[in-house]
Amino acid sequence: MRTALEWLVGPPLPTQRLESERLNKVRALAAFSPDALSSIAYANQEIFLGLIVAGAAGLVFSWPIALAIAGLLAVLALSYSQTLWAYPGGGGSYTVAKENLGANVGLVAAGALLIDYVLTAGVSLTAGVAAIASAFPGLWPYRVEVAIALLVVITVANLRGLRESGTVMAVPVYLFLVAFLGMLVWGFVVALRSGPGSWAGATPTVPVSSFLLLHTFAAGCTALTGIEAISNGVTAFREPVSRNASRTLWVMAVLMGALFLGSIGLTQYLGVLPQAQETILSALARRTLGTGPAYYIVQGSTLLVLAVAANTSFAGFPRVASVLAQDRYLPHQFAHLGDRLVYSNGMMLLAGLTALLIVLFGGDSHALIPLFAVGVFIAFTLSQAGMVVHWVRLRGPGWRAKAFANGLGALVTAVTFLVVGISKFSQGAWIVLLLIPILAVTFYSVHRHYQDVAKDLSLRGLPPSLRPYPEPRIVLPISGVHRGVVEALRYAEALSDHVTAVYVETEPAAGERVRKEWEHWAGKVPLVIVPSPYRSIIGPLLEFLDRTDQEHNDGQLATVILPEFVPAKWWQVLLHNQSAWLLKLALLYRRRRGGATRAVIDVPYYLRG
Amino acid sequence: MRTALEWLVGPPLPTQRLESERLNKVRALAAFSPDALSSIAYANQEIFLGLIVAGAAGLVFSWPIALAIAGLLAVLALSYSQTLWAYPGGGGSYTVAKENLGANVGLVAAGALLIDYVLTAGVSLTAGVAAIASAFPGLWPYRVEVAIALLVVITVANLRGLRESGTVMAVPVYLFLVAFLGMLVWGFVVALRSGPGSWAGATPTVPVSSFLLLHTFAAGCTALTGIEAISNGVTAFREPVSRNASRTLWVMAVLMGALFLGSIGLTQYLGVLPQAQETILSALARRTLGTGPAYYIVQGSTLLVLAVAANTSFAGFPRVASVLAQDRYLPHQFAHLGDRLVYSNGMMLLAGLTALLIVLFGGDSHALIPLFAVGVFIAFTLSQAGMVVHWVRLRGPGWRAKAFANGLGALVTAVTFLVVGISKFSQGAWIVLLLIPILAVTFYSVHRHYQDVAKDLSLRGLPPSLRPYPEPRIVLPISGVHRGVVEALRYAEALSDHVTAVYVETEPAAGERVRKEWEHWAGKVPLVIVPSPYRSIIGPLLEFLDRTDQEHNDGQLATVILPEFVPAKWWQVLLHNQSAWLLKLALLYRRRRGGATRAVIDVPYYLRG
Repeated sequence: MRTALEWLVGPPLPTQRLESERLNKVRALAAFSPDALSSIAYANQEIFLGLIVAGAAGLVFSWPIALAIAGLLAVLALSYSQTLWAYPGGGGSYTVAKENLGANVGLVAAGALLIDYVLTAGVSLTAGVAAIASAFPGLWPYRVEVAIALLVVITVANLRGLRESGTVMAVPVYLFLVAFLGMLVWGFVVALRSGPGSWAGATPTVPVSSFLLLHTFAAGCTALTGIEAISNGVTAFREPVSRNASRTLWVMAVLMGALFLGSIGLTQYLGVLPQAQETILSALARRTLGTGPAYYIVQGSTLLVLAVAANTSFAGFPRVASVLAQDRYLPHQFAHLGDRLVYSNGMMLLAGLTALLIVLFGGDSHALIPLFAVGVFIAFTLSQAGMVVHWVRLRGPGWRAKAFANGLGALVTAVTFLVVGISKFSQGAWIVLLLIPILAVTFYSVHRHYQDVAKDLSLRGLPPSLRPYPEPRIVLPISGVHRGVVEALRYAEALSDHVTAVYVETEPAAGERVRKEWEHWAGKVPLVIVPSPYRSIIGPLLEFLDRTDQEHNDGQLATVILPEFVPAKWWQVLLHNQSAWLLKLALLYRRRRGGATRAVIDVPYYLRG
Repeated sequence: MRTALEWLVGPPLPTQRLESERLNKVRALAAFSPDALSSIAYANQEIFLGLIVAGAAGLVFSWPIALAIAGLLAVLALSYSQTLWAYPGGGGSYTVAKENLGANVGLVAAGALLIDYVLTAGVSLTAGVAAIASAFPGLWPYRVEVAIALLVVITVANLRGLRESGTVMAVPVYLFLVAFLGMLVWGFVVALRSGPGSWAGATPTVPVSSFLLLHTFAAGCTALTGIEAISNGVTAFREPVSRNASRTLWVMAVLMGALFLGSIGLTQYLGVLPQAQETILSALARRTLGTGPAYYIVQGSTLLVLAVAANTSFAGFPRVASVLAQDRYLPHQFAHLGDRLVYSNGMMLLAGLTALLIVLFGGDSHALIPLFAVGVFIAFTLSQAGMVVHWVRLRGPGWRAKAFANGLGALVTAVTFLVVGISKFSQGAWIVLLLIPILAVTFYSVHRHYQDVAKDLSLRGLPPSLRPYPEPRIVLPISGVHRGVVEALRYAEALSDHVTAVYVETEPAAGERVRKEWEHWAGKVPLVIVPSPYRSIIGPLLEFLDRTDQEHNDGQLATVILPEFVPAKWWQVLLHNQSAWLLKLALLYRRRRGGATRAVIDVPYYLRG
């Protein structure tokens, strides 16, 4: 077991191996941009799918919608670059919202963030599989399986501790940038030569309406996901942290804008229409590059960069979960580093949830987008609103301009959130709108429980020297007389002079048989036979314990000692009456007035069979 | 919890309430015939579905196939009536096969029997739902749901202890007999008036072949299921047991034959063709009675008798499981009567397996038939073969004739088994042919384990007075100093003078903080701090225990005492580090050389939060 696990994820690592590495701008861009840059893979697809239903008359709105989203991108880049300066120690939505808008709003932001990380992984993987299945249509029916296989590879790599993030991850990112920018440049050459194409082949099924356009705009806004990554990870930059991070952010935003506007513009100018089971980006690449090596490089690099984007969730989700757990909003288990110096529990939870999402939504990124967009824009809005409060409170130099910039960010993201939430409500946005308050309430309940426990366990007010316990009375329930019972009896006699055995008699006259054997083996230790006409074991035993505790009235509850069979093979556990286990459960979970506790002693007996 | 359960299944009943009731022939027929009589509901359907693919040219073989099956029925009735005389104490396949063909063959028969009971429940329920959905086509898409709902009702009724079997169950059986025999009589009148119909409307898709006919014969043999019920339950008859049972068996066989041949004959003479989503019996009833009240009574009584047939599995399966458990081939849990004097565990297992079957096979009895037929004919063959050996061994008066009769039964059932197994192999028969040996091996392994345990636990050879245990060394692992730890410490001090606390230090320097607090609260009890650079808790603790056991070298293993948090609400269990639980598991399942055992003491601490 242990060795199989070690083979998979590697041997444990000591705590000293934990070191924080600072990245230069080139490697930082590769580390933080995959999610943002790869967004075009699904955003373009969403814009196309949103407009195609209205035919050519709808598709011509691609460019205006893309321009509107690019405008939003500029506002967000400005907003987040301000966060970088204000929070050089890391300004994720949770931190910013908690510090400026209060703990409760922070919890809402945290819920949205966790959901977003899961959706980033799910959407990126399914979009990546769609890209490669566009190139190899034979894969199309197996999109769920391929996505899950990729997820497994990424999960195992992360559980091993994917320490090489800056270096290995940089290759797919820069490959993608080169391939895509190259394709766009070449595409412009093609466009100049061939002149404009047309979408005449697309037959409309619905008319163009403002709802259709809003709807498409909302889905297209997923192009903006990932823009916040640098503000979360700002501590990884070299000094001067804020300046380096801010410059990287602007480079990233410009690249995002160029890729997005370039690809949408070319698609519209050339009137690209994909075949069945093909993404719009694949159709664009085919149109500009032909179905040759260059085309396959573009599709392959899309898959790779999306896989790397999914991988960023494996850094982000466990880190946020750990911060929440350290603030006691999530169970302890998420707070600590595992054997391999990674937050293994958080990673496994993320992997499980992502797999569930992929399977439930049939491996279709289009079906996941409504959930994704709504979660992302909640987090954006809360983070920007928090920044406004931050500047207003601080009133540093130029605070009005800064508050205005973030206020603009908050306003446009809030409006976008409303557009997404309303227009996509019935297509899945409701799931996220329902989950976020549920998560927030869960965080809150967990927090209250931990506070109560801390109070409960506090030694404050307890006198340092306590009255010692009397020698315990020990009760040994037996199901017959055998080696396991005899072992337990010997152990009980070593602990106390007050040992009593109990036999619950479910068949008439069985008790006398047991008594005879008992007297032979146990000498003077008394045996009480409790009749059970209803054939239940636990009930009569509990009654016996209560009765004798009352009779003794010595302020203690009798200790119960249980011989426990340990079979040689795991499945044999099923072959033994689970009475001992049920009794333990019953004893443990029965609360007693006055807080008196009943100790339970297990004496294992190892079966060889 | 307990009260909700009691509300559902009723309060516990004392053992004295268990009484065995003897049935007169009229009530016995009602108790044992539902499975046999209701078989026509699916057997006719199978013959029709088997032949319709060859059109009218195929369907005319209905009557010859029905005659062959009726011949088989006569042979089986003769065979089983002999079993009644030979085994007046109950002659189920398992008993007869075990006694005459050896324990291993008995286990094969037992496996086949258990599978048959599950399939009887599954086939009867789905066929019953098909009957009622033929009358109310709106139910057709909800066949799985309706079948599961019926299953739930039957399960709950049986868990409550369906003691009224003889009386209440008689009503549907006699209603069904009256309705069906009435329909057949009326049908002959209709047939005389209208003259023969034709199946000209049925378009053939395949030619008639001998494989097609064998195939259909095999599926139609499910008409014979249930014929063995009386020999299983012979003890329920009044004295003279064998004579009464035998007469009832012949009455049942004649009724089976009349219903089967009558319905097939009428169907063929009238050339009945069902509509889409209708059973052949429903089409026959519609044709003879019109779609009026009489038709609905026939369909309703079909559903009822099939539900009662499914119910017979709830008597048979748990009884066989209990016999197997008493013979130590199945876990103890199946051997004993539950609170309501029924074998609750067996019933719940049956219900679970039946539900699984209904869901997996889409509520379609036709899909279940290949599995059913193969299981039934294995049990038939083994039982008859066992009877042959029985007569040959006994050599009583007329043993040659008796052996010949059972030999004939064994031969025809074996041939039918081969026909079914081969012709239906790929349609599901393989599942049963695979499951039966798996079950037999499982029974055998369980048996061997129980034998090994009995040997292991035997006190034979143990000297009656054993050297007493020394006072135990107690180790108290702590995660900090709090009330739970202080309680556990006080309890440990009451048990022994050798108490040591251990703290596993996962963060550098945390140990010294703990030591200070410890010294304030625990006085002179020593605290050992074990560093854990890999942040694991369990490993270093186990190493510490091993090391100190070796150092003391006093022939005992230190006892571990664990403070255990018991939270107020169940979900809060998830919020506490499961280290204590994992440690217990690790301690319990680590076997030690020389059989030395390490006791574990739980001291619960009740959290109020």
